[in-house]
Amino acid sequence: MKFKIDNLQYCNWNREVFKINREAGLDAVHATIVYHEDFNELGEQIKKWQKLFTENSDLIFLGKDFKDIEKANSEKKTAIFFGFQNCSPIEDDIGLVEKVHELGCRFMQLTYNNQSLLATGCYEKVDSGVTNFGREVIKEMNRVGVVIDMSHSAEKSTLDAIDLSEKPIAITHANPSFWHAAKRNKSPELLKVLSDSGGILGLSLYPHHLKDNTNCTIESFCEMDEKWDLVKEHKLWRRHKE
Amino acid sequence: MKFKIDNLQYCNWNREVFKINREAGLDAVHATIVYHEDFNELGEQIKKWQKLFTENSDLIFLGKDFKDIEKANSEKKTAIFFGFQNCSPIEDDIGLVEKVHELGCRFMQLTYNNQSLLATGCYEKVDSGVTNFGREVIKEMNRVGVVIDMSHSAEKSTLDAIDLSEKPIAITHANPSFWHAAKRNKSPELLKVLSDSGGILGLSLYPHHLKDNTNCTIESFCEMDEKWDLVKEHKLWRRHKE
Repeated sequence: MKFKIDNLQYCNWNREVFKINREAGLDAVHATIVYHEDFNELGEQIKKWQKLFTENSDLIFLGKDFKDIEKANSEKKTAIFFGFQNCSPIEDDIGLVEKVHELGCRFMQLTYNNQSLLATGCYEKVDSGVTNFGREVIKEMNRVGVVIDMSHSAEKSTLDAIDLSEKPIAITHANPSFWHAAKRNKSPELLKVLSDSGGILGLSLYPHHLKDNTNCTIESFCEMDEKWDLVKEHKLWRRHKE
Repeated sequence: MKFKIDNLQYCNWNREVFKINREAGLDAVHATIVYHEDFNELGEQIKKWQKLFTENSDLIFLGKDFKDIEKANSEKKTAIFFGFQNCSPIEDDIGLVEKVHELGCRFMQLTYNNQSLLATGCYEKVDSGVTNFGREVIKEMNRVGVVIDMSHSAEKSTLDAIDLSEKPIAITHANPSFWHAAKRNKSPELLKVLSDSGGILGLSLYPHHLKDNTNCTIESFCEMDEKWDLVKEHKLWRRHKE
């Protein structure tokens, strides 16, 4: 059975968006619900989502595991999987990893461009890799079931995370750097390690990650995708677009 | 004029301690008021200190600048200078640097052993130096007047801080590693750069930082101090003990 999954979406969430998603046959979406919010601020965002779930229960529901993708498909709805683009909601408290999981979080980036308490972002001058605290948090994320997302992380930090994590990790939104050498895009070497470890890649449509930026053509994007043997050979996940 | 200053003290602060400090003729003390507290938790500690200042106004007062050391000396009191052993009270908000200064903070460590958002601690495997956010925070600490304390930081991070800061920095509690090679103690190379930049060193009496740990003798401690030409030549500050 084939499913349509968007590996990362961020927007001003509203009924119109949920309708478009459903019209596109989207079974599941990893939705960014926070960037730099702390734990209390996360609570505010979750309250907003509870209202959205109530008011749009014909279109969406909160996704908690893979069975919810099948459920969404059969019920013609979209399962919304909560994700964080930074680790700020767990603050400096490892006990909050379990708490955010209870609140529905299923993806968390260890960094967002800059250094975090867990790892180094791709915009820092020096990449020290996963930190002492980061090693413990990875174990805890593995234990409770939150996917490690390294989309905005630097290379050594990402390689460390793949090595340390007992479960495959995700790069939910980035492209290969051979196509467009943005800091956020990933080297073939890294993507090979990701692929060999069973990790997933979601391709990105963000202009800065595209060849020729806003002038990028759909042909060029598809050519990148087709040329890239790793994608085909290893059947890495990718962003599905109709 | 000579003053007696303790470069760092932590304890269960109470009237008995303030009496001992005053009996020792201590004019000023850099007092650790928080370790890993966030901004709100810092507020709780400051409330406790306000009570201590009120109840012990014959012995102590809040120190805000160097003139308060002279004032303490002439009034036979001890000026208490607030310090943080970690940057957690500013959370991820550069605007809080000015706020903590308004609340009395005059010293802040950029890290406490592990990686922080600003720099790397001495117990991490890799030291990436001062981060993007750290560079901005150093400028802001310079602007508002909070001394950068690198006692628990790793070597490259400390060298970066010395280089980036427009004002001299402090290592308020550590010893030279040639005497005792603890991770928290500092290399002669680093101490030379610190000294040349006008920075200060406060020697440490914490057992892990001492040769022979709890069996360290006062003779050995003084020998280290005397042997160490840098201390004498550059007149680095040191912890005064009667």
